[in-house]
Amino acid sequence: MTDYRPPLRDIRFALSHLVDLPGLQASGSFPNADPDLVFGALDEAGRFITEQIAPLCRTADKTGAKHSPDGTVTTPPGYRQAYKRFVEAGWPAISFPEEWGGGGMPFVVGLALAEMVTSADMSFSLCPMLTYAAVELLVLHGTEEQKATWLPRLVSGEWTGTMLLTESQAGSDVGALTAKAVPAGDGTYRITGTKIFVTWGEHDLTGNIVHAALARTPGAPPGTKGISLFLVPKHLVNPDGSVGERNDLVCVSIEEKVGIHASPTCVLSFGDDAGAVGYLIGEECQGLKYMFVMMNRARLHVGMQGLAVAEKAYQLALAYARERKQGTAFGAPKGTSSPIADHADVRRMLLLMRSQIEAMRGVMYQTAEYGDLAHCHPDPAKRREAADRIAILTPVCKQWGTDLGVELASLGIQVHGGMGYVEETGAPQCWRDARIAPIYEGTNGIQAADLVARKLTIGGGAAAQSLLAEMSGVAAELRGEAALAPIGEALAKAVATLQEAGTHVLGRLAASPNDALAAATPFTQMFGIVAGGWVHGRSALAARREDPEGREAFLQAKIGTARFYAAHVLPKVAGLLGEVTAGAETVFAVPVEALGG
Amino acid sequence: MTDYRPPLRDIRFALSHLVDLPGLQASGSFPNADPDLVFGALDEAGRFITEQIAPLCRTADKTGAKHSPDGTVTTPPGYRQAYKRFVEAGWPAISFPEEWGGGGMPFVVGLALAEMVTSADMSFSLCPMLTYAAVELLVLHGTEEQKATWLPRLVSGEWTGTMLLTESQAGSDVGALTAKAVPAGDGTYRITGTKIFVTWGEHDLTGNIVHAALARTPGAPPGTKGISLFLVPKHLVNPDGSVGERNDLVCVSIEEKVGIHASPTCVLSFGDDAGAVGYLIGEECQGLKYMFVMMNRARLHVGMQGLAVAEKAYQLALAYARERKQGTAFGAPKGTSSPIADHADVRRMLLLMRSQIEAMRGVMYQTAEYGDLAHCHPDPAKRREAADRIAILTPVCKQWGTDLGVELASLGIQVHGGMGYVEETGAPQCWRDARIAPIYEGTNGIQAADLVARKLTIGGGAAAQSLLAEMSGVAAELRGEAALAPIGEALAKAVATLQEAGTHVLGRLAASPNDALAAATPFTQMFGIVAGGWVHGRSALAARREDPEGREAFLQAKIGTARFYAAHVLPKVAGLLGEVTAGAETVFAVPVEALGG
Repeated sequence: MTDYRPPLRDIRFALSHLVDLPGLQASGSFPNADPDLVFGALDEAGRFITEQIAPLCRTADKTGAKHSPDGTVTTPPGYRQAYKRFVEAGWPAISFPEEWGGGGMPFVVGLALAEMVTSADMSFSLCPMLTYAAVELLVLHGTEEQKATWLPRLVSGEWTGTMLLTESQAGSDVGALTAKAVPAGDGTYRITGTKIFVTWGEHDLTGNIVHAALARTPGAPPGTKGISLFLVPKHLVNPDGSVGERNDLVCVSIEEKVGIHASPTCVLSFGDDAGAVGYLIGEECQGLKYMFVMMNRARLHVGMQGLAVAEKAYQLALAYARERKQGTAFGAPKGTSSPIADHADVRRMLLLMRSQIEAMRGVMYQTAEYGDLAHCHPDPAKRREAADRIAILTPVCKQWGTDLGVELASLGIQVHGGMGYVEETGAPQCWRDARIAPIYEGTNGIQAADLVARKLTIGGGAAAQSLLAEMSGVAAELRGEAALAPIGEALAKAVATLQEAGTHVLGRLAASPNDALAAATPFTQMFGIVAGGWVHGRSALAARREDPEGREAFLQAKIGTARFYAAHVLPKVAGLLGEVTAGAETVFAVPVEALGG
Repeated sequence: MTDYRPPLRDIRFALSHLVDLPGLQASGSFPNADPDLVFGALDEAGRFITEQIAPLCRTADKTGAKHSPDGTVTTPPGYRQAYKRFVEAGWPAISFPEEWGGGGMPFVVGLALAEMVTSADMSFSLCPMLTYAAVELLVLHGTEEQKATWLPRLVSGEWTGTMLLTESQAGSDVGALTAKAVPAGDGTYRITGTKIFVTWGEHDLTGNIVHAALARTPGAPPGTKGISLFLVPKHLVNPDGSVGERNDLVCVSIEEKVGIHASPTCVLSFGDDAGAVGYLIGEECQGLKYMFVMMNRARLHVGMQGLAVAEKAYQLALAYARERKQGTAFGAPKGTSSPIADHADVRRMLLLMRSQIEAMRGVMYQTAEYGDLAHCHPDPAKRREAADRIAILTPVCKQWGTDLGVELASLGIQVHGGMGYVEETGAPQCWRDARIAPIYEGTNGIQAADLVARKLTIGGGAAAQSLLAEMSGVAAELRGEAALAPIGEALAKAVATLQEAGTHVLGRLAASPNDALAAATPFTQMFGIVAGGWVHGRSALAARREDPEGREAFLQAKIGTARFYAAHVLPKVAGLLGEVTAGAETVFAVPVEALGG
């Protein structure tokens, strides 16, 4: 098995040409967004990840996390030490505010770092990822006291965080949750109930775990409007800041899953004795609103998992395809044995992987930058625009990115032929690990419904329109450069199809909402593919600007990859238009009783 | 977990309306092709499979096949007894000639039975499947003595068969194999070498295993022209027919795979002592030709695995979607909790599964019938036509069917939400098991190249043309019935696009073969989708004929499913046309050295 090598050059290219780091630094919100500082940090992080995290991945998958009847969870060999070093090196804190001990870099840089950690070992990466979400919540909604107590040790990673939403009867329908929170009279609450699917809900990496849990207070209205958010630590904290007594919650079991074996997915039971001590975050009955704010960032993070696992799968497939020789490729001298990468169909698979990975990286980094700009841009109109863009692109990144992650990891297996089915190569693990991402943090169906019903309608469709106009502008610019014109043609055509689809969906949303909901998934996919064409177009323009005479292989490969994407991937949107416009009538053409044959 | 229920009604519908059983019986080759006999047998088989095989599937996956250092392989609990009963009931023999103890039914009936076994437990099903291939070889190319010795016990399933092609350096490039066969002077040969990826190459289910192995005789020409085929039994057979001494071959290890855990995938070493005794089948240096004849049937069988696993995945997903309640579906009374099957996006996923499963079943049964007709039709021109059709449709069934198997099993996981990632539901096993099928028996890339380079060219394209003309005829017939016209419109459009793609590919094959090879995979996918529309159209016409007033829910569901397929699946071919016509230039736009970023 080939080790993971962080694609630092590709990451640097995206951060240099699709993202404006100097602009983020100039805003004053990210004192350390200077490109030299950022690239130095990412180089160093890449080294750390290669040496300390990537080597654990296969063994961790085989061993898995282990649950004991006493409620403890043991992580695979090497995880404790690697996590300790990860914290010591300061990597969890890189994109948090300096005031809480963070690195003062923008979110987009944190995402790039997280991409590398995820490629190296997705199970491991989930632990810091969930912590980011808890930090985000506290920064936005915590009291000063809460911030002082929890933030420094969450930012540093000394303690980890989780999100507790799901209960057995309340998955996509969060409003159905029944966990209770009763005021204890001293300002704290007592939490009872059972939460399932809690990622890294219990483990042995740190001295404490801080759960962000949704629960209902007495007399709260039913449904989503009666949900409050609580901070419920595994251990209480003494007034002097030291770790105190165990809170009343226990990990009852962990799931036996098809992938991310080393990431414990826990069933947590609260309040089997007197009730677990919980601290209200913000106001009562506002919990879901807070959670949604945080979920946007978490959803982009999950979208990135599609990218990260696909990158790892691509590296494995490429290494295999360069080494493995079978048959004589077209054009190779008769009787020679060619690397399978030289056969048209294998090369096509490799380019499908590479070009869609770069599309994902571009769109996701761009979306993360919008996240940063929405906070830091000096012009309120620009902040608004960035907020709208992140609102639109987040469900796209999550759905399109995670579906692609599975698809590309599967292609990676295929490139390996028979060896791809053997666990030893690592290719199946990529595919198994990637499969969770379309499910959690809001299923991809929920993402698509979100895009269609809540995001496309922002400003009566104006926000999406402005994004499409920007894409059309890039297409026009490409068409002005002879060498890039075919990319521009394909992009213009794809944007026009997306425009047609969007107009159709918006129209149906008003006239017959179920038509729009039936169209949501293919529409969101289409949006992702076109957005990928947009960033490929911008990359090609940048590469052309940097290297007008075509001398640098790396930059020319950016143009070649964009040309492949334009010729082989963008045309797929034409095939999705039929599904988008088909409507709900055919979806419900067979009554549910007759579906069983 | 819901148990598998054989879809006997759907199978009967396909065998009644897409296949002509009375015609096959009338040919005289299949004395027991009478529909009543066939459906009676399949009902009985369905009961047996439900009771004896399906319940083993989850435990067998968990336990897996176990290899011991002494070379033995132990199958999971229950397999020995189930296999014994399977043989006693006569199921392995159903579609073999009566003269060898078979059931005298056509291959298409054997395929229907195999579909049910595969859905119940794919690992288990592979053992009889490989045996079919060995029987086929002997029936076509064995001497009378070989037939008498081996056929009765292979037909009955008392012994099992295997296929030994792959060596570590010779996968897709079979011609690179180096196993040796040296004449022993007594008419037999001594075989030496190591074969890998041997499915069910060693096990404890039967008293003997009969390997069909490719090897090179001394002085044979290099490459594919120097390969001969040998029958190499695990145990020699004494003159009285009893099982004799152990042959010189041993199972060195089995692979640790991502799926089909209970199917031992063996590394077999031949001739570590004096050389394993092998019996030449047919003539020297003709081995690959014989193997290819047999592989056609095996490839259709593997295509069927995509169908079978998707059917199982669909049953699990449908049961879950009917039971699981989340949120209020559009149109349901406010405040009620709806089964998720009533949400448009979930229903869409269920219909994507169901409609594509029915498409696969139709195309595959039709292809199997062509296989029967190619042998039995009294008119030589019709035999020729059937042989051409099976030649064209076999790579389509294998590639399109197995890719769909993985895709639909993945959709099945998605329907389950979070539970879909948990092994207990059985959904992940479907997906893991299905993943081998696009790889073995010739990777899907090999299938696509076969279609484009060898099959599309039959009769200068006339054979494919005649099939497309038949599809157009069905489209015209549909357009003549008001209620079915939209299906006809969509089919006509899809056939026209396929026609355009086929003309393009044939043209490029002559002018610039690598363009055709770069287009092979999307072209083959397109062919499968359109063929699916063809059988859906025929099913809808049949349902309409049977039930003109729309009173039977089952038949109306056939029409509804065909309408869904026409609206949501057929339009995808438009999106594939771009990839088909993109050519090799963009595929090779990035030099191999620059692929790594």
